[in-house]
Amino acid sequence: MIVTLTTDFGEGSSYVAAMKGALLAVNPAVSLVDLSHRLPPQGLVATAYFLSDALPYFPAGTIHVVVVDPGVGTDRALLGVAWAGQVILAPDNGCWTPLTRRSPEPPRVYRLDQPRYWRPTVSATFHGRDILAPAAGHLSRGVGIEEIGSDCPEWVELRLPEPVLAGDVVRGLVVFVDRFGNLVTNIPAGAVRPGAEVHLPGGGRPRLVRTYGEAEPGTPVALIGSNGRLEVAVVNGSAAGQFGLTAGAAVEVRRPR
Amino acid sequence: MIVTLTTDFGEGSSYVAAMKGALLAVNPAVSLVDLSHRLPPQGLVATAYFLSDALPYFPAGTIHVVVVDPGVGTDRALLGVAWAGQVILAPDNGCWTPLTRRSPEPPRVYRLDQPRYWRPTVSATFHGRDILAPAAGHLSRGVGIEEIGSDCPEWVELRLPEPVLAGDVVRGLVVFVDRFGNLVTNIPAGAVRPGAEVHLPGGGRPRLVRTYGEAEPGTPVALIGSNGRLEVAVVNGSAAGQFGLTAGAAVEVRRPR
Amino acid sequence: MIVTLTTDFGEGSSYVAAMKGALLAVNPAVSLVDLSHRLPPQGLVATAYFLSDALPYFPAGTIHVVVVDPGVGTDRALLGVAWAGQVILAPDNGCWTPLTRRSPEPPRVYRLDQPRYWRPTVSATFHGRDILAPAAGHLSRGVGIEEIGSDCPEWVELRLPEPVLAGDVVRGLVVFVDRFGNLVTNIPAGAVRPGAEVHLPGGGRPRLVRTYGEAEPGTPVALIGSNGRLEVAVVNGSAAGQFGLTAGAAVEVRRPR
Repeated sequence: MIVTLTTDFGEGSSYVAAMKGALLAVNPAVSLVDLSHRLPPQGLVATAYFLSDALPYFPAGTIHVVVVDPGVGTDRALLGVAWAGQVILAPDNGCWTPLTRRSPEPPRVYRLDQPRYWRPTVSATFHGRDILAPAAGHLSRGVGIEEIGSDCPEWVELRLPEPVLAGDVVRGLVVFVDRFGNLVTNIPAGAVRPGAEVHLPGGGRPRLVRTYGEAEPGTPVALIGSNGRLEVAVVNGSAAGQFGLTAGAAVEVRRPR
Repeated sequence: MIVTLTTDFGEGSSYVAAMKGALLAVNPAVSLVDLSHRLPPQGLVATAYFLSDALPYFPAGTIHVVVVDPGVGTDRALLGVAWAGQVILAPDNGCWTPLTRRSPEPPRVYRLDQPRYWRPTVSATFHGRDILAPAAGHLSRGVGIEEIGSDCPEWVELRLPEPVLAGDVVRGLVVFVDRFGNLVTNIPAGAVRPGAEVHLPGGGRPRLVRTYGEAEPGTPVALIGSNGRLEVAVVNGSAAGQFGLTAGAAVEVRRPR
Repeated sequence: MIVTLTTDFGEGSSYVAAMKGALLAVNPAVSLVDLSHRLPPQGLVATAYFLSDALPYFPAGTIHVVVVDPGVGTDRALLGVAWAGQVILAPDNGCWTPLTRRSPEPPRVYRLDQPRYWRPTVSATFHGRDILAPAAGHLSRGVGIEEIGSDCPEWVELRLPEPVLAGDVVRGLVVFVDRFGNLVTNIPAGAVRPGAEVHLPGGGRPRLVRTYGEAEPGTPVALIGSNGRLEVAVVNGSAAGQFGLTAGAAVEVRRPR
């Protein structure tokens, strides 16, 4: 069984290592896959985009442990979310709700309240190691999610900033910058018609293309990226560097006249 | 069988990749788990804290390859340490000794001196790839540790800085800063009574709490962290940033009057 | 079956996570091994050195997915390269050719042109996720490389900068700097005779040794590193820092007089 780990602990942190130990102690045969340990500290919006962009590619049966937890040390619940044949284990902070909201498959949500599936001693500040990791271990051994938790009728919903349509203009924003300096926005493919104009703060006007290969290296372009949203790039260069923009910057798409 | 890797090579280094290859060449069926490749270069103290905080969570049977090696290229020995059903393979530099010293289970220590379990050619500067990785591969296939090494009566002991008790004051220090800017100290839980006062250099006086949830975001707090030692945090913020402190900073705990 | 991943996406990128999902969706039983996600963006020369230094250590049967792709979004081919019992899947950019060129075993090269082994929908900009990862999944399930691709008679060759011999002087350069600040050059062991003098820009004259242990901490040395090429190091220090040099710096080896 595959168990993935997604955290904001930083690669190489002893917190990640301890979680792996606590998981393998329950099921040494698990197939452990690191997804990310580099989400911004307490960054729920970034986590929501990350999960939305990555989890749809995983097979049914995968168990995902997601620990980005601004509510650490409070009495926020810990959830098990069954969705599309996969299970997400996470604090109740809504990070998974944008993923399931856009999906036709409704989630079933459980509150993890069965201490016999936890470590015998539970710390006040590290439920990832003491509750979520062992719970994932038990799930991976075939324990049902309805055994490790109870039906949970309510949970925190996270709302991502949505692009706004005003007349012929769609106003969105940069939601993250990838390692290539591409500015990935929240503007969906459906809002970008052929011939549309893309306007950046400071006057940047990247040319709309279908793919990088339509422009020379060094050219600013806008295109629908691999996750189905508009992104601004510089071919073999950095749009973030060239335009001096980062996450949060406004991006406008104007329909062709 | 699980084999973990812990190094100071940096993530994505070809040195890590070559070690993985050398290990998988001996046992392609091994379950490879990265713990950290980001320990400070030659940082034995940080490595000792890392192992102490992470290895107790792993199941019996786990094999850990730990390559932080200030003595690379000298004739320092390479050791196999059997402890708590696990095995640690590391250069003889003491990084594992604080872990086993605080444990009731004594280590059995072997010197790796059986070249038939090494790569056929051994470089002068990369024993992690040429000796430790293949040795881990053979162990994971069921070869006994007493076959790949010989009884080793003496080894390097590493002493970590211990907090000092003077009157009603315990003086310790920050041993590492995590990605959240938490200042993790060497002061054990037992030295911190309810009502104690925590004093930082520069006059900081974080309030002692049991968990983050007892204070508002932005508040400096001190609490017993998930590894059983005092840490200073700012709720949803960075204590390292707010107090301008880093590893090595002095921390005092004064008993309540 | 082992499948390794090597990219320039950055650790923790959702692009890496999505590739892992797309691979596991085809073969959940695969043994996934991260090699590097930190190659320089579009850095083919660094990728070529990385593959040359790491892949020879892997066992026959390993499948390597290598996505460093300056031609993303163009019509460059995607290749499957059978070499030494291993398979490398990569865009046609030559990154693997220095590895196979120095090996006695010739590569067999296939063009991946069988869409039934791809994801049903292929994006314009993420062939790693949509073509290479699922192709690796099918290979790992036993599909032959000649089923997922067709014989490819021509491919891009990448030429690495070679050291130049002029009289008694070999002129090479630093090809990468590792995390310890070691300056790893392209000068092969065979070009460095005992007693040779090593000259750095700015007048540095590190002493030629066989291994770090022959000099005191803090001493600049030159030695044949674990990958068989000359490197300049400072024992327990940083040669890059001490000499102010980085990748691309010229290094000269003068034969003993």
